[in-house]
Amino acid sequence: MKMNENEKTFGNITIKVKKKKENCAHTDNVCDLTSNDSGVFTIEARINKIIQTRGPTIFKIEDDTGAADIAGFVSPGERAHPEIGENDSIRARVKIEMRDDKKRMNITEVSKIEDISLKLDKIMDTAEESVRDINFTIKSSVLDALKGRFISASALIKKSIYEGRQVLIRHHADMDGYAGAIALEKAILPLIKNRFGERDMWFHFDKSPSTTPFYEYKDVLKDLAFAKRNIERFKRVEPLVILVDNGSTEEDLLSIRKARLYNIPIIVVDHHFTEVKDGKSVVDPYIDVHINPYLKGGDKNLTAGMLAYELSRIINPTVDDMKILPALAGVGDRSEGSEFEQYLEVSKRDKEHLKKIATCVDYEASYLKFMQDSGLVCDLIVGDEKSTALVDLLYNEIQEIIRVQTKVLLNYVDEKTLKNDVIVALIDIAKSTLRGDFPGPGKAIGILNDGLNEKHGVKKIVAIGYGSDFITLRSNSSCEKMGFNVNLFVARLQKDMPYGMVSGGGHEVAGSIRFVENAKDEVVEKLVGYIEEL
Amino acid sequence: MKMNENEKTFGNITIKVKKKKENCAHTDNVCDLTSNDSGVFTIEARINKIIQTRGPTIFKIEDDTGAADIAGFVSPGERAHPEIGENDSIRARVKIEMRDDKKRMNITEVSKIEDISLKLDKIMDTAEESVRDINFTIKSSVLDALKGRFISASALIKKSIYEGRQVLIRHHADMDGYAGAIALEKAILPLIKNRFGERDMWFHFDKSPSTTPFYEYKDVLKDLAFAKRNIERFKRVEPLVILVDNGSTEEDLLSIRKARLYNIPIIVVDHHFTEVKDGKSVVDPYIDVHINPYLKGGDKNLTAGMLAYELSRIINPTVDDMKILPALAGVGDRSEGSEFEQYLEVSKRDKEHLKKIATCVDYEASYLKFMQDSGLVCDLIVGDEKSTALVDLLYNEIQEIIRVQTKVLLNYVDEKTLKNDVIVALIDIAKSTLRGDFPGPGKAIGILNDGLNEKHGVKKIVAIGYGSDFITLRSNSSCEKMGFNVNLFVARLQKDMPYGMVSGGGHEVAGSIRFVENAKDEVVEKLVGYIEEL
Amino acid sequence: MKMNENEKTFGNITIKVKKKKENCAHTDNVCDLTSNDSGVFTIEARINKIIQTRGPTIFKIEDDTGAADIAGFVSPGERAHPEIGENDSIRARVKIEMRDDKKRMNITEVSKIEDISLKLDKIMDTAEESVRDINFTIKSSVLDALKGRFISASALIKKSIYEGRQVLIRHHADMDGYAGAIALEKAILPLIKNRFGERDMWFHFDKSPSTTPFYEYKDVLKDLAFAKRNIERFKRVEPLVILVDNGSTEEDLLSIRKARLYNIPIIVVDHHFTEVKDGKSVVDPYIDVHINPYLKGGDKNLTAGMLAYELSRIINPTVDDMKILPALAGVGDRSEGSEFEQYLEVSKRDKEHLKKIATCVDYEASYLKFMQDSGLVCDLIVGDEKSTALVDLLYNEIQEIIRVQTKVLLNYVDEKTLKNDVIVALIDIAKSTLRGDFPGPGKAIGILNDGLNEKHGVKKIVAIGYGSDFITLRSNSSCEKMGFNVNLFVARLQKDMPYGMVSGGGHEVAGSIRFVENAKDEVVEKLVGYIEEL
Repeated sequence: MKMNENEKTFGNITIKVKKKKENCAHTDNVCDLTSNDSGVFTIEARINKIIQTRGPTIFKIEDDTGAADIAGFVSPGERAHPEIGENDSIRARVKIEMRDDKKRMNITEVSKIEDISLKLDKIMDTAEESVRDINFTIKSSVLDALKGRFISASALIKKSIYEGRQVLIRHHADMDGYAGAIALEKAILPLIKNRFGERDMWFHFDKSPSTTPFYEYKDVLKDLAFAKRNIERFKRVEPLVILVDNGSTEEDLLSIRKARLYNIPIIVVDHHFTEVKDGKSVVDPYIDVHINPYLKGGDKNLTAGMLAYELSRIINPTVDDMKILPALAGVGDRSEGSEFEQYLEVSKRDKEHLKKIATCVDYEASYLKFMQDSGLVCDLIVGDEKSTALVDLLYNEIQEIIRVQTKVLLNYVDEKTLKNDVIVALIDIAKSTLRGDFPGPGKAIGILNDGLNEKHGVKKIVAIGYGSDFITLRSNSSCEKMGFNVNLFVARLQKDMPYGMVSGGGHEVAGSIRFVENAKDEVVEKLVGYIEEL
Repeated sequence: MKMNENEKTFGNITIKVKKKKENCAHTDNVCDLTSNDSGVFTIEARINKIIQTRGPTIFKIEDDTGAADIAGFVSPGERAHPEIGENDSIRARVKIEMRDDKKRMNITEVSKIEDISLKLDKIMDTAEESVRDINFTIKSSVLDALKGRFISASALIKKSIYEGRQVLIRHHADMDGYAGAIALEKAILPLIKNRFGERDMWFHFDKSPSTTPFYEYKDVLKDLAFAKRNIERFKRVEPLVILVDNGSTEEDLLSIRKARLYNIPIIVVDHHFTEVKDGKSVVDPYIDVHINPYLKGGDKNLTAGMLAYELSRIINPTVDDMKILPALAGVGDRSEGSEFEQYLEVSKRDKEHLKKIATCVDYEASYLKFMQDSGLVCDLIVGDEKSTALVDLLYNEIQEIIRVQTKVLLNYVDEKTLKNDVIVALIDIAKSTLRGDFPGPGKAIGILNDGLNEKHGVKKIVAIGYGSDFITLRSNSSCEKMGFNVNLFVARLQKDMPYGMVSGGGHEVAGSIRFVENAKDEVVEKLVGYIEEL
Repeated sequence: MKMNENEKTFGNITIKVKKKKENCAHTDNVCDLTSNDSGVFTIEARINKIIQTRGPTIFKIEDDTGAADIAGFVSPGERAHPEIGENDSIRARVKIEMRDDKKRMNITEVSKIEDISLKLDKIMDTAEESVRDINFTIKSSVLDALKGRFISASALIKKSIYEGRQVLIRHHADMDGYAGAIALEKAILPLIKNRFGERDMWFHFDKSPSTTPFYEYKDVLKDLAFAKRNIERFKRVEPLVILVDNGSTEEDLLSIRKARLYNIPIIVVDHHFTEVKDGKSVVDPYIDVHINPYLKGGDKNLTAGMLAYELSRIINPTVDDMKILPALAGVGDRSEGSEFEQYLEVSKRDKEHLKKIATCVDYEASYLKFMQDSGLVCDLIVGDEKSTALVDLLYNEIQEIIRVQTKVLLNYVDEKTLKNDVIVALIDIAKSTLRGDFPGPGKAIGILNDGLNEKHGVKKIVAIGYGSDFITLRSNSSCEKMGFNVNLFVARLQKDMPYGMVSGGGHEVAGSIRFVENAKDEVVEKLVGYIEEL
């Protein structure tokens, strides 16, 4: 990492460094300590923490170019340089050498100096300045309106890496969520590797799927327990949490607020509907950066995977491009409109091919559940020979499953034509699929809907799958035109059946509803009634 | 750790040390090796084990003040001092120095001596003597009667730490269990840190919740598998298991006996009913120390958390006091009586405040399940600013959930007044709650009971929630006065319906019953009959 | 490890080594580097990989006797010997010494030489030659016909250890599977210990139970994610997977093919039915070695545990013999016939004693589920004092459970005698057992079958236990003689009820069937009809 004496580069952010040259003495920077394996350097830095080991005393120092641990030694276990305390600023001569494959940075001279003004807090501003001319992959007024948030998110990620925080990506376990998480991983890991080396890199990064489309309370507990453990046992700092395809809704609120009370910085990259009042979403008071199309008049068609892809390019423009990711994200979430079309073109793949991959990723995700995949999903996407073979293997398997599943669904479905000519297809979907296997109820009702559309042609059809305590439904655009909207129906139920504990929703004509088992018959009846009145 | 030459202090146990002064030679103690980082010491000790590494030969030695590993070296991999074997007693000169941040203790001279009489085995007696004047926080004849057991438990814990055993706390995952486990953790961890240092401390301690109120067979398998792994792969010894709010019942027996066959020392601190015959409980033959009020005429109102709190003060009187813990434990388990009142006073909090915290801990525990919490529960208790904010956040959430849940329960409940004027409120509780979410069935039936009491005022009410294979019920003191006792009812069922595989029980008017699904209707019918006959 | 100058012994394979003696210079072998802790050696080897650390440069070398990492050093982080690249062959002088308990192998001289012809690829052939005179424990024409496959499997295992692959045993979680896995573990671990030392041994071995009798997709994902992690983060190679009592059926196919695409070598040791066409099973194209009696005209009575036992003796004849294992495997799977009888004799135990152990292992396995047991199951088998005590403890517990469970089953069973005098005993087995507890449905239906046979004496009885989406059934030999075969019935259902998603099978008169819940009544009805028509 060669640098101009007056400029320090960190990722794609260039920071102007005003060198302190008191008494004509030459001063190096802390990043020189981290980037060299031998030599003698003179640095000026602030001490953040002092740790007394059974051997030397460790001083955790920082200037505006980096952070390092330097050691002072008098005798084993004795506090070196007791005149110097935490939060002091120092000028120190540090000798670096390798001993037994370990790098040692020992203080040979040290003195207190006047408080140096750390520019750390200004990194975010600097960053914003330096990336003012970012270009998105596609033309989109919503993206443009969100530009400031992208810049803030990128800066916060870099600042967090700089501070030694673990970057923890929590993403929805579907194609869209995986695409976004993979894009961010590819951009962030090289920066971490740069700062902490290949061996320590994995302590600073983690990526976990959430099986729900929101940040479940048990997930935040898992993350907090892990973070607390690292802080207490290994003197780490709080992680940065990035929620991808999760994080914008009321259902995320408790988990986000809990994390916030533990001083966890949070970035949300989501495209789930979030109510906006005075330009603010309900989660905004508790997070650092919120990227969501609904904040700027956009909608779900600009998916989380697309947003995360654009963010990844801002964070790290030099990273291997995976142009297929935003298109895959869109296909996975059935995105429509100009943005999707542009991403499709960018990807240079045809839609059928993308659908095939997305189907395989859904299958994989349904068996991975909350398991970390170590790149198994990415292997389906990259497009090399192995990737193609993996997709072929899974896709053939899935096609066969769908063929059989369709027979089951068409056999047990109960169709009736309502007065307004809508065909309502009712099925106990839990009793018509194999528990724990692919396809799950939501996927299966999609398969049934496809089968019914094929059978009936252009008719108004609503496929309704119920289980003991849920409904999952899927319809088509002709019903959407009639005004069908599962979110409105859920809102009505919540009012009419306060004793039903009803929740849920989704996209207008594809969603799910949850309730207590006792309420099932009434909910199903009311749903059919609602459709008949459209 | 400065010490008088004739006394050694270990925790709060002071051990009189008879110094060997043969040939006028000065003799140090093994604890001097562990507490110094440099110098030359002459010790007399017994060799427990000799390990030949590819480098030096390691001698694991011990005297009555501590244990240490000292190294002998001839050439790499060659056995040093072959004339000395395991179980020999030696006099050795040991040089301590730090090299590369690691402490090295090398033998410079060594000779065999006559067998030194290890006082290790006497530590427990010594301990009992030295802590004879322990004072409990409150006045309680039951505590007084259990005093000897507290002393034995404390001594065994210290002996186990001394021997390098991992201390493994297994506690019931409710407020009472968490309170007890936290109290013990706060007392034990500093002792471990003293002996093994901060870095290795966590290898010597573990704390895991059990979702059942007994030591489940799958939990003991997990613990044994882990212990075996440590023993085989890392040459560790068997752990000490402390069961908190678990361990006293027949249901614990199989797991305890299994652990016992693996030579695991076990301490039980519990307040669940245990049948006592000739002063012995059913589990006594298989455990080392049993602390339970029923052993000395007390009852469940002296909860496990209270007992563990008193034990923690005996183990380590210098530890930061958490006077809130026994009161919280009592509130969590609806304890009543003199002991609880005294703890309430000691805590200096009002009962409503404690209830609020206990409610939050229950909520947290229901999502943590068997997950280790790394202190998340403790954070709700400590009472600082963050703690207050966390409790406020959760408590508001819970109040809203209870408000909604109450509506659901009152809508689906089926009330009938029996001939003896008892109102029986029946509900399919599994179908009236959201699976996997808070509140679970037991908690929900408590909420229903509260709602019914509010609705009907001072009436005799029994709230009965059934699922496909269980019943959970809650009543009030007026029914208790009529003689209602779920334990007696379960005993009757076991006799009348041997084909029902009925088990369960609990406190008199609050408990749960489990059976095979086929028996459900008959059990419910018999329960209503039992109540009608009261 | 003393060796003849012209022969190298690796496990029980002796490899003839042609020494290179160019210019009369003495040449040592790479295995001399790994087996000595000091000295200076001259080796000729191929460089597989070069890793630049912040300290020295690491050269991963290999010859036909072993592999090692040797270090070159100029200055910290500088590439040593830049003239030498990966895949080059070298002649090097290596100095070995211990520093700070770590073994260091430093290059003092090195030069490129002509490509040495690695004999690595020939190890398998050599192995086959060297073990030509293997003797099985028993007389069995099927074993004899499989001999070549045993030799190949043994050679592949040794080659994999040699290459540094982790050996990952995936076995069915029943007595047969555990017996096989334990036999292999006992044979393989010493070889790994020989090559990598005791401390690193466990990185090279793993053993996990699968709760299904096939290699579930979620299990292969877990294994692949773990393998990828090791490869990416710790520069490991792909593991060798050995499937025991799993792997031969269509249901294994997807997982095996997936693993294959990740270049995982696979050995299958199974006795589940596999269709053979032209001497090939359906899984053969995707695995390396397949050992299954059906491949050579044998059947399920030669169980996986027996096969694995024989394999273990070929891999490592010096290992402590556990003659009880194949007999236990046979008892667990109700094996009959000459092979089983011989193993029974070899074991020198009576059948009742073996049944007792097998029952305990089944109990243990049902609570361990997919948990690694660290030897808990083995502890039930070894036959020492502790083992006997453990078995007694569990067996008494199990007998009591069976006594109670029998009462439940006989109370709720619904018997009817069909026109052909077969007694069909129908029971909702899920509603007649305690969920999650021992016995599970399959075990329970066996208990019912035993109870019915005792009650009715020599009659034709079929015990049918149904749950919401499965049937488990057990009958006796008189029904087998009538032609009862659950596999044929499943095949018929798959044809007659394509909408039922029916799968399953098993042994002729003991098996299970799975279907979508909606199909239950029809499947039960058809099953009774099928039996009536026998």
